[in-house]
Amino acid sequence: MSEKLRGAPVAAALNEKTAAAVAGLSTRGIVPGLAILRVGVRPDDIAYEQSAERRCAALGIAVRRVTLPAGASQEALTEAIERLNADDTVHGILLLRPLPEGLDEKAAVGALAPEKDVDGVTGVSLAGVFTGSGAGFPPCTARSCMEILRHYGVPVAGKRAVVLGRSLVIGRPIAAMLLAADATVTVCHSKTADIPALCRAADIVVAATGRPESVGREHLSKGQVVLDVGMSWSEKKQKLCGDVDPDAAELTGAFTPVPGGVGTVTAAVLAAHVAEAAERIKPETV
Amino acid sequence: MSEKLRGAPVAAALNEKTAAAVAGLSTRGIVPGLAILRVGVRPDDIAYEQSAERRCAALGIAVRRVTLPAGASQEALTEAIERLNADDTVHGILLLRPLPEGLDEKAAVGALAPEKDVDGVTGVSLAGVFTGSGAGFPPCTARSCMEILRHYGVPVAGKRAVVLGRSLVIGRPIAAMLLAADATVTVCHSKTADIPALCRAADIVVAATGRPESVGREHLSKGQVVLDVGMSWSEKKQKLCGDVDPDAAELTGAFTPVPGGVGTVTAAVLAAHVAEAAERIKPETV
Repeated sequence: MSEKLRGAPVAAALNEKTAAAVAGLSTRGIVPGLAILRVGVRPDDIAYEQSAERRCAALGIAVRRVTLPAGASQEALTEAIERLNADDTVHGILLLRPLPEGLDEKAAVGALAPEKDVDGVTGVSLAGVFTGSGAGFPPCTARSCMEILRHYGVPVAGKRAVVLGRSLVIGRPIAAMLLAADATVTVCHSKTADIPALCRAADIVVAATGRPESVGREHLSKGQVVLDVGMSWSEKKQKLCGDVDPDAAELTGAFTPVPGGVGTVTAAVLAAHVAEAAERIKPETV
Repeated sequence: MSEKLRGAPVAAALNEKTAAAVAGLSTRGIVPGLAILRVGVRPDDIAYEQSAERRCAALGIAVRRVTLPAGASQEALTEAIERLNADDTVHGILLLRPLPEGLDEKAAVGALAPEKDVDGVTGVSLAGVFTGSGAGFPPCTARSCMEILRHYGVPVAGKRAVVLGRSLVIGRPIAAMLLAADATVTVCHSKTADIPALCRAADIVVAATGRPESVGREHLSKGQVVLDVGMSWSEKKQKLCGDVDPDAAELTGAFTPVPGGVGTVTAAVLAAHVAEAAERIKPETV
């Protein structure tokens, strides 16, 4: 029987550290603040917004929701971002994406102040992940994966890791973070030949294909640790599914369930980043 | 018998394109300019400086050498960089590294104007390589490898590539570029288990370990394409050596010789980047 690597204890441990950081900031008179910027009313966005807001509020982080109508202009979006950039009570900005059609996401991301980029979407943050410089913040989901591995004491150094998917939100950053942790990392994608064989030979598999239950028995082997980043609604099963077939996952050594795995940690990482963004501000500039 | 992938024809093809770009710029009254900034008198630096200067001069690129004494202060270095940043006749800045001990390389690199970073050392350039955004320039050696593969028509998409070494100068950027070209990329390093087996299974091997002739028969297999980025002086052999044992390389399908391989292309890529940096300047701001 395979071990379930549940996200809740990981999130709880992170939240404890964040609460301590928030308490420390409060002795300096600082309340860390997160602004959540949403354009339009996508149900996914609203769900994430609510979960982030709840988590942050519980930890003493001030949350401000800024909502623009679905038809907002690029100028209005840029102006909203610049106002938050300039606001000293806002330490982190979460821009919910994808933006409605017609808006230039690249331009919006480019307008974000890198020091407030708690979701790791700017070039500065991605360069920080790639170079290990520590600038900016890693994408929350990628850091969630690393926190899970650390929390459960999964050895990473010298191990073979296969990352399925090469998005900038998860695939490429998690590959860079695993490499920095001394794993031997292979990134697989739509053009990769014989993905199942590569997967089976890995000690750690990160599934971030975005295709529900696309990772099956042929990909998995005994003793592996599998992190499932997927989260999609299956019409067929009428439920939330990961990228890994849960029956097949039972063949491995340990895996993150969906729901209750990686996704459960994301809001805790976001809150940790907001507190860290507030801590990074030099006392003399407060 | 294995094919030798010589750098000279690759460099010649690149230079032809650069010459055309320089001619195009000259109709707009622009002479692309490269500044080479050197601190101290390391023989390696001087050799690279001379080769870059010769190459650029032959292509109609103006080259300015700026040399600071080995004992220069950080302030003097920053000032020299800022002066070049502000100089409209300088489109590219090559900062020779490593800097003498006592100087903060990170700070120096941070001072470089990203749009003049023709050697791909700034965070902006590395983020550009990692994200594929096209911002900045890739490190010259990494792009040289890609140019060699393209010039000789080596298939990359869907092929397995192993990169030996994870430096920011070559290992990590070439891995990102191979991934962007749809290879399935594995990065190996000092903590990797069984490197020879991983290497043998690859279609493309990029050797960037910095250890002379450390890649031998046990790493190589028939039909592979091997790019040797190494270039070190072997006391034992009293000659310039690559990272790959040249006798072992003969087992493969094709390989870049040392000297005469990757290193031969670098100055041509640098010149191409200088011309491109000049071309990127919008007409109205000239």
